[in-house]
Parts: sequence; C-alpha cells; structure tokens
Amino acid sequence: MSSILKGIAASNGIAIAKAYRLVEPDLSFEKKSVDSVDQEVERFQKALSTSKSELEAIRDKANEDLGADKAAIFDAHLLVLSDPELVTPIEDKIKSDSVNAEYALKETADMFISMFESMDNEYMKERAADIRDVTKRVLSHLLGVQISNPSMISEEVIIIAEDLTPSDTAQLNRQFVKGFTTDIGGRTSHSAIMARSMEIPAVVGAKSVTSEIENGDTIIVDGLNGEVHINPTKEIVEEYEREQARYEDQKAEWAKLINEKTVSSDGHHVELAANIGTPKDLEGVKNNGGEGIGLYRTEFLYMGRNELPSEDEQFEAYKAVLEGLEGKPVVVRTLDIGGDKELPYLNLPKEMNPFLGFRAIRLCLEKQGIFRTQLRALLRASQYGNLKIMFPMISNLDEFREAKSILEEEKEKLVTDGIKVANDIEVGIMVEIPSTAVMADIFAKEVDFFSIGTNDLIQYTMAADRMNERVSYLYQPYNPAILRLVKMVIDAAHKEGKWAGMCGEMAGDEIAVPILLGLGLDEFSMSATSILKARSQILRLSKSEMQKLAEEVLNLQTNEQVIETVKKFTKK
Amino acid sequence: MSSILKGIAASNGIAIAKAYRLVEPDLSFEKKSVDSVDQEVERFQKALSTSKSELEAIRDKANEDLGADKAAIFDAHLLVLSDPELVTPIEDKIKSDSVNAEYALKETADMFISMFESMDNEYMKERAADIRDVTKRVLSHLLGVQISNPSMISEEVIIIAEDLTPSDTAQLNRQFVKGFTTDIGGRTSHSAIMARSMEIPAVVGAKSVTSEIENGDTIIVDGLNGEVHINPTKEIVEEYEREQARYEDQKAEWAKLINEKTVSSDGHHVELAANIGTPKDLEGVKNNGGEGIGLYRTEFLYMGRNELPSEDEQFEAYKAVLEGLEGKPVVVRTLDIGGDKELPYLNLPKEMNPFLGFRAIRLCLEKQGIFRTQLRALLRASQYGNLKIMFPMISNLDEFREAKSILEEEKEKLVTDGIKVANDIEVGIMVEIPSTAVMADIFAKEVDFFSIGTNDLIQYTMAADRMNERVSYLYQPYNPAILRLVKMVIDAAHKEGKWAGMCGEMAGDEIAVPILLGLGLDEFSMSATSILKARSQILRLSKSEMQKLAEEVLNLQTNEQVIETVKKFTKK
Repeated sequence: MSSILKGIAASNGIAIAKAYRLVEPDLSFEKKSVDSVDQEVERFQKALSTSKSELEAIRDKANEDLGADKAAIFDAHLLVLSDPELVTPIEDKIKSDSVNAEYALKETADMFISMFESMDNEYMKERAADIRDVTKRVLSHLLGVQISNPSMISEEVIIIAEDLTPSDTAQLNRQFVKGFTTDIGGRTSHSAIMARSMEIPAVVGAKSVTSEIENGDTIIVDGLNGEVHINPTKEIVEEYEREQARYEDQKAEWAKLINEKTVSSDGHHVELAANIGTPKDLEGVKNNGGEGIGLYRTEFLYMGRNELPSEDEQFEAYKAVLEGLEGKPVVVRTLDIGGDKELPYLNLPKEMNPFLGFRAIRLCLEKQGIFRTQLRALLRASQYGNLKIMFPMISNLDEFREAKSILEEEKEKLVTDGIKVANDIEVGIMVEIPSTAVMADIFAKEVDFFSIGTNDLIQYTMAADRMNERVSYLYQPYNPAILRLVKMVIDAAHKEGKWAGMCGEMAGDEIAVPILLGLGLDEFSMSATSILKARSQILRLSKSEMQKLAEEVLNLQTNEQVIETVKKFTKK
Repeated sequence: MSSILKGIAASNGIAIAKAYRLVEPDLSFEKKSVDSVDQEVERFQKALSTSKSELEAIRDKANEDLGADKAAIFDAHLLVLSDPELVTPIEDKIKSDSVNAEYALKETADMFISMFESMDNEYMKERAADIRDVTKRVLSHLLGVQISNPSMISEEVIIIAEDLTPSDTAQLNRQFVKGFTTDIGGRTSHSAIMARSMEIPAVVGAKSVTSEIENGDTIIVDGLNGEVHINPTKEIVEEYEREQARYEDQKAEWAKLINEKTVSSDGHHVELAANIGTPKDLEGVKNNGGEGIGLYRTEFLYMGRNELPSEDEQFEAYKAVLEGLEGKPVVVRTLDIGGDKELPYLNLPKEMNPFLGFRAIRLCLEKQGIFRTQLRALLRASQYGNLKIMFPMISNLDEFREAKSILEEEKEKLVTDGIKVANDIEVGIMVEIPSTAVMADIFAKEVDFFSIGTNDLIQYTMAADRMNERVSYLYQPYNPAILRLVKMVIDAAHKEGKWAGMCGEMAGDEIAVPILLGLGLDEFSMSATSILKARSQILRLSKSEMQKLAEEVLNLQTNEQVIETVKKFTKK
C-alpha cells in the first residue's frame, strides 16, 4: 500500500531508495528458571561467538570505510567479549541460579557497569560504556532481535529514525546514505543540519516514520516539499524522477555562480561562508563556492567514540581544514557540548533543562584540561591557514575574558617551546544568548568579531525549546525582537570597526537574507548547499533598498507581518 | 555532635525547633517466593487496615486544620483502599503465584495505574494518581518504612527536605512550621518564595541537610546569614536567642512605617505591593503595610489536589483577596503552570527542557476550558475590589491579543447573562521573556501595564536555569543586560502613559532598589516580609540621585561592577 507522510523539509532535493531503520531494538525479557543449565550455557556461548564474528566484520568494514579511529571502538568491544572476568561470572550465574542467559548476562553486566561508573577514573568509565554496548549486542542474539549496524550499510538507503544523534551519524557511511527521515525534530535539529552538510534530502518531524516504515520499503524523501512517500506507485516514482531532474537543472544554473563574488546589485560585497562539522565537508564547500568557513563545529571530533580526542588528532583535523581552505578564513568554534549534544564518556550529571545548563564555554572554563588541549591544537594548526577562533555560549564579559586569557597562556607556552603560532588570529564570540546581544556595544570593544547563532538566540529570546514540538510555533526567526537584537549586534560591531557574521540557519533563509543585507551583515554562514542559491538571490538585491526594508520591519508587530512585508517588498 | 551547614539565606529571621524530615522514603523491595501464602495475605491485610486507620486520622486532622477541600484527597484514598476490585486481585496474586505481598501489590497497582492513565478521561486519570499514593502508603507499612505525613504535624518543627514542591507546602500546617531548610534550590526557588510568603526563616541549597539531619534533631535556621546549626550547644542556642531578639527589635523599628506612603527623599511616590499565593497570605500583607497585591500567583489553587478547581471555588478565593484588600489594587496572574510547577492530574507529557516548554499562557491558549473557567471566576469577582488581570509568559503580541479576546468573550457572555462585571479592569502582561522586553514599545500601545518578572527574565536572558546549581553563578540580576531590558520596559510604558511594575525577587533587593527607583519603576512587588525594609530604604533615597546612578550602571560591563558601584553610590 502506498501512503504519504508530511513533515518538515529540512534539506533540499529528492531521494528515492530502500528504507533502513535505525531504531532502538526492544531487548526486554523476563527472568526464567531453566531446566538444563548446560544447554543454557551453550546458548550463551553461541550468542557470544556470533557477536564476535559480527563485531569483527563491522570492525573491518569501519576500518576500510571510516578509518581506524572509528574502528577502534569495535576493537574495544571485542576485548570485552573475550574477557574471562566478565564471561565466567555469567556462566557461573546461569549454573548456580538455574536462570536464563539473558538474566545472568544483564545482572552481571549491570554490576560491572555500575562498579566502573562509580570509579573516579575516565578510563574505567569508558569501559562501562563498552560493556553496555556489548551487552546489547549479545542480548540481541540471545533474543533473536535484529539490532542496527549502521557501519555495515553497503547499498543505497534512506535512513528511517526517531531522531538521529550525532553518534549515529558519525557511524554512517555517507556514500550509501541517500536521504533521512525522522519522527521528531525541526529545521534546526541535529539531523537536519547533518543532512544539509551531507547534501542529502531530508524530511524531519514526520511523526510516524518509524512506526509506518519497514526495512526494505521503497521510500521517496521529498526535501523540497517535506513529504515522505512509502511504497509509491510507479507513476509517482516517475514523476519524482522528473522532479529530481528539474531540481538538478536548477542546481546547474546556480552552479555557474561558483566562482563569482557575492555582490549586491548596487555593488556591496558580502561574504558567503559555510558551516561544517568535519574535514569531510570541505568538498561540499568547494563544490558550492564557499568564500570561507563561518562555523566549524568541532564537537563532531569528540563524538561517536569512547574517549577525548588527543591534541595531535585535533591538530590534524584543524590543519586539514585550514589547508583545504587555502588562505580563506576559517572560523573554528571551540567545543560546544551539552544541551542536546552529549558525550557519554564525560559522565555529566542529568540536568532538568539541559538547554539552560552546563554546556559549551561553561563546561570548558570548568574542565580546563579539555579546553586547553583544544586551544593548543588550534594554535599549532594556525600557521597552515587563516584561522579565527570563536567561543560559544558567551553570556557575559567575564567568560570571554577568562577564555581569552587561557588562550593567551597556551600561546605563550607554545611560543616558549619554540612552536610556530600565527600572530594575527582573530578571537570572537558566538552571539546566541540574549544578554550578549543586548551588551554587544560593550563586547565590541574587546572581541575581534561576532557571529550570531540564531538557532539558540531565537530559542532563548522566545523562551521556547526549538526541539519541542508543542512550542515550535514560537520559533520565530522573523519576530522583530530577533531582528532588533541582530541589528544591535551588527551596529555595535561596525561602531568599533569589527565585523559581524551569522552562522545560524537564518543566514541562508530566503526571507531573512534581504533583511540581513539591509542591516549590514558582513558574513553569511550557512549549509554549503544553500550558498549558491543565496548568492543568486543577493546578486538580484539592492543593498540600499534592503536598508529601507530593514527599517520598516524592525517596527512591525509580528513574525507574520515581517514575512508578508519582505515578500511584498522583494517582489517589487 | 554539633555541626553547621552553609546554604543560601532565602528568607529572613531565625528559627529554633526540632527537625521534621519531609523526604521520599526508600520503598524498594525484591520479588520473593513465600512459603505460607495465608500468612502473606494476612500480612497484606494488616498493612491495609493500618493504612486505613492512618488515613482516617490524617483526614480528620486535615479537615480540622486545613479545611474540607484539602481533606477530600484522603477520602478518595480511603475509597481506593476499600475497593474490592483492587484488593481481591492482589490477594489472588499472592495465592496463585506464591509471591510476597509487596510484589503482588505493586504489580497489580501498576496495571491499574497504566490502564487508568491511558484513558482519555480526566476522572480516570485522577484515580491513577490516587492508586499511586495509596500503594506507596501500604508498601510503607509492609516494609516497615516511615513515610512523612506533613498534615499530621502537631508541634513546632523545622522542615528538612531535598526541595519543597508546591504540593508539599500545600499540605503543611503553617501554624507549626517555624522554618525550612533544603538541599537544593536558590533564592528564587519555590521553597524560598514559600518561606518568605509564610514569613518564616529559610536556608536553601544547603546541600546535605537531608543526609545529615535526623528527625528530632534540634535545628537553628539562620535565615539572615544562611547557616543551619545541627544540635547546637546551649551557648549557641542562647546566642541565637539574643540574635532573634535583636532582629525582632529591627522589625519593630520597620513596623512603625506600616501606614506610611513610600516616598523618596525628594518626594517621588512609588507603590510597594506584595506577592501572594493564597488568601491566607493576606494577613502578612496587612501586617507589613503592603499598598496592594502586585502578584497573586493563582496556581496554588490548582495544586496539592486531584482535579481542577471549579469556577465557584476560584471565585470565592479571588473575592476573598479583593475584599481583603479593600479597594487597593490586586494584580492577579492567570494560571502559570508547567516548568517546575506540575499538575499531575493534567497528565502533560514530559519535556526535555520544561522551562522552555509548554507552560503558562501557552498551555492556557491551548486548553481553553481551563483558561475560560479562571477568567469567568475573575470577572465575577471583579466587582468586589480593584482587579487587574495579568497574563504570564507572553512572548509575542499574537498571544496577548488572543488571550485578551478570550477574556472579552467571557465578559460579554457574563454581561449577557446579567452578571455584574467591573468595567475598568486593567489587563496587562508579565515581561519575563526577552523578546517581550525588546518589543515593549509595541506592546505598550495595547497593554494597560507591564510587570517585569525578573526570576524568569534573568534565566532566559542569561540562558541559565536558575534551579541548576552548576550554572547558578550566571543568575546575575545586576548584569547590565538585565538592567537595560528593565529600562526598555519602563520607558516604553511611560511613553504610552502606562505603568510598569516588577514582581520578581529583584524588586525587594537592597542593591536593585536604588537602580529601579532611578529607572522610574512605578510599582515594586515583593514578598510581604520585605516591604517594610524596602520602604525604610526608599525613604532615605533621592530619586534624582538614583537616576544618575542608573545611567552610570547601564554602561558598566559586569554584574560585579554594578554591585560595587551601587554600594559606593548609596554610601555617599
């Protein structure tokens, strides 16, 4: 039966492929008494050896497709499976209590997990995470339940998930993933951002994809209109193939602008830069004519693994990006973890409101070891390109001063050690907290640049969680309150001779671009795939006209009025 | 052994009394096979009958001390205990499965709870909550664990809790509660606000009170210095008794100002009003010379019970407050539920960031039945005093317009039905979301007044959960960003001939008062117990001098600088 689900168009384009479900399996079971303990031990050993061969295959495939660093996790898992200190007590328990293998495994593993987790030692805590993963895998074999192994995907698929976490996406082989669709999330959720960075179509917040789609169903993800087709008819597939072709033509038109400067019709130049997550995204930046990197989200280096990345590992990644940009500006954001982005191996306490919690610069200023390692890696990489360093979640001047002085300290140390460090590194901040926008005039005297992070700025300014469907109608990018804060930031920067950029989703948005041009934004940083479209739009706009538009919308009453006014104004 | 814990001074004064622990008991148990099922059934029946007599005693006491409405919950619980449809299956399960009573009770109750909760019927959902409470009580008797019965307190005590929830405090007999101390929370947490409204000393965030204090320990709560003494020596008790006397003298000094107007030294009048939670707080308002009610938090009417309050019940409460104020202004805030204030009987879904979630006006505009009932009760009460209605958590103009038009509709209906409604009810909004502060000029054309809710405004503006200890250093009331937003709101109101008040904790704060006077704030609403102290402070301040102070601090860089500057300035 063919059917259609509606969701939020999160990444442009059309994809047609088979469904691959990336969902948490149901591994529940009941405690049971067993009659033959020997048979039960044998059942356990069989699950163990199946898990081992499976892990070996995954390890080899990950090594080949994703590199040794991603494969290392699976080696750690294999070690756990071969550890007699874990395996023997499970077998003993089956024998002594005459219980089923599932129960003996879970009880024993849980004991080790809570023991390791309670230790004040990063290494042991990581072991707890390994045991948890391995237990899941062995349980799945005992129960005959399939668990998903995203690293093993070897044909073109569309990923079906409740939501995609950063660690899920870290394990995906991008070559085969043609599209995403998720139950929850909005245009600024992690899944959506990832899809845009991977340049694949995505529909998020489609509510029931995981319940209505089975593995192997044929799926069309229409990222232009926010529709998901399940097992469509032949006619519909053909229609979408034509639509796909039309979209490719449009993209070819835009592609002609790849080497153009971004200049308004009255001669004002702005910079169109890209947001990236890993060095792998560089190709997309080049293919889409990015004039720089406006946001390098370094947290992906820290995700989908069991321990912090070393200084050298980070250095290599930063160097790769800086060299790849060949002297064009690269704004690197220091670690922004917490909120919806967790690092299990840091064992941070659960918070009631993680978006208002201990994250980003707050965490870095407390866990200075992590922060200093990153800064050293950045400083060492600085000689390979045009590096700018940006601190996230700055809410008051003390935080910026402290972060900057730590940076200065690390620089001194490196210089003393004879290591070359660029001398002209600009140091700026994300403006994503209302207090910082309101105090932009004070900040502008001390920072080198601002980059407005609209995803968070909007959510805090409207006090509405952008991931929460019940209040997502309050995520209003065009609310004049947001536009006024943006203006405060740009004006404050210019008054002190600094530059102001924007790296939220808004920077590439068709309605926002004319206003931002009018407000004088210097740098627009967006998903690489939005750059050429935005360039084609700006080439047709006059900055002085857009100044008039900006003045007008700042005094409107509501989000809706702004949308209408922009549409009317730009049609003229 | 005598010892001292440090916490946050949350409500002034000194209390000395015995400890009463209000903590969640440990009701965990293991599933066991039992040899004699008859003995086990008997054990269950005994726990049942003990629970019944206990509930009867609590019901009678609650009826006497707190009124029939609070006692009704316990009648409902008694009904559950006598229901054969619940009791028989438990006994059957003990017999058929040879399991312990704890297990049979929990399994059976959980089944009923999930059945009732899944029904789309408010009444059945309330039954689920009753069964949960009753199960806890019977379990406690089976396990021989003491559970706290706050309604049974019949001697002077100091409450020791991890944190106090609104439903805990609703059940307290205020006559006997001499002080609070809690492990977590800050000056603006619910426990702290309650303590101030009850005019009893409190120290919150003292981290380990529940682990270090036993029932019956002698406790000194020093709400002036934020200290908790456990089993102090005789000398220390005597010293504190003297300190208590000195504080009483100081209060007697302030008490002379009870009938004074609040006029600055250069003749500028402001209004000092009180924040209240229930009609019971009226006495405190009178005893402290309040010139009105600046914030009536109506959510307490909805808490500590199993169903929504009826229109008549609400009408009586609002009428009592309006009549009690004898024509002085009463600002009633419509229901502000959600965030840290839950109503279990509404069965709202769990949210990842409740402070940024579906709460207050957002909930009222969706669940209009609840909202309209409250508005009708308010309108009917309006003829008994000087009512002003205020909507909480307004983030954009559409919300205000919608809320106001619902109010107009209900007014029309009442008038059509021949019910008298005051004609001059002012309708205003809380300004507690940054977007609304930034758009105050637009709002000022449509609202009758603003009341700045600093507790939330600070937390959203700084993006820091005020209940989260890890980021509580970012709760910065004097950060110039906050002061600038406050100024925007006051200026916008005055430009349109409207008034601006403040009903957060900041309004009664010694450092903030001089700045707020200088910024031109018209109404300061605070805990009743802070009014006389604030009045005594304002009488000594010159408004024109404070205007200079305000101008100066708006351009400072940090929270700390503002504190220093105010101290220096007001010492002159």
